[in-house]
Amino acid sequence: MTGEDLKSRYSAYLDCLNRQDWQELESFVGEAVVYNGRSIGLAGYREMLKEDYRAIPDLHFKAELVTVDPCHVASRLAFDCTPVGLLFGLPVNGRRVQFHENVFYRFDSALIAQVWSIIDQAAIASQLAQPD
Amino acid sequence: MTGEDLKSRYSAYLDCLNRQDWQELESFVGEAVVYNGRSIGLAGYREMLKEDYRAIPDLHFKAELVTVDPCHVASRLAFDCTPVGLLFGLPVNGRRVQFHENVFYRFDSALIAQVWSIIDQAAIASQLAQPD
Repeated sequence: MTGEDLKSRYSAYLDCLNRQDWQELESFVGEAVVYNGRSIGLAGYREMLKEDYRAIPDLHFKAELVTVDPCHVASRLAFDCTPVGLLFGLPVNGRRVQFHENVFYRFDSALIAQVWSIIDQAAIASQLAQPD
Repeated sequence: MTGEDLKSRYSAYLDCLNRQDWQELESFVGEAVVYNGRSIGLAGYREMLKEDYRAIPDLHFKAELVTVDPCHVASRLAFDCTPVGLLFGLPVNGRRVQFHENVFYRFDSALIAQVWSIIDQAAIASQLAQPD
């Protein structure tokens, strides 16, 4: 795939997440996907995303910056949402928070094969430390 | 610059940091650099790095994954070090810790103009919660 193809494909993947189209996910994510060093597979990946939506009913994936090379996508995702309870062990409890995720994906045969994600949990903790 | 030129340039930038060559830093970082949304400028950037080395005397920048497009570098950095005291408010106190940083750089005229960094502070907290 060209860089532009990969960028389009990544954009379609985010649309799939935002639609919560869990059937379609298999068009984007490989059966043996590895997430942050753990071989969770497609089923584990789907379950992780469903759990994300349970924790954050208004979750929406928005890419602020996307760079691609022939087999990788690097993306800076921005979130603006109201998690219902604990998030990453932090008592968000329905408060609105903004945070980012910087994430790399390795694609193999047009499917996501490996993910390296870091979420800015410190930004959430810092917002919770401020008065409402 | 081509992608390969940018990759070489980024590698030379990391070498500069690892040598703590604070004079040479101006060859890589723009005067008006913005770091995580703050206009800290080259002087502020240099001071931030010096402070990093005070907090982590054996700091070493090692890129595990680097992707480039015409004006951006995205990098996953791996750290294996022994911070002397508090790090990100966490009482590391000389213990050895491993963590990652996922970071984007925008280059302008071959100089770093903007940086979006997220450091995996949760990984450090998790290691401190384990017995030595």
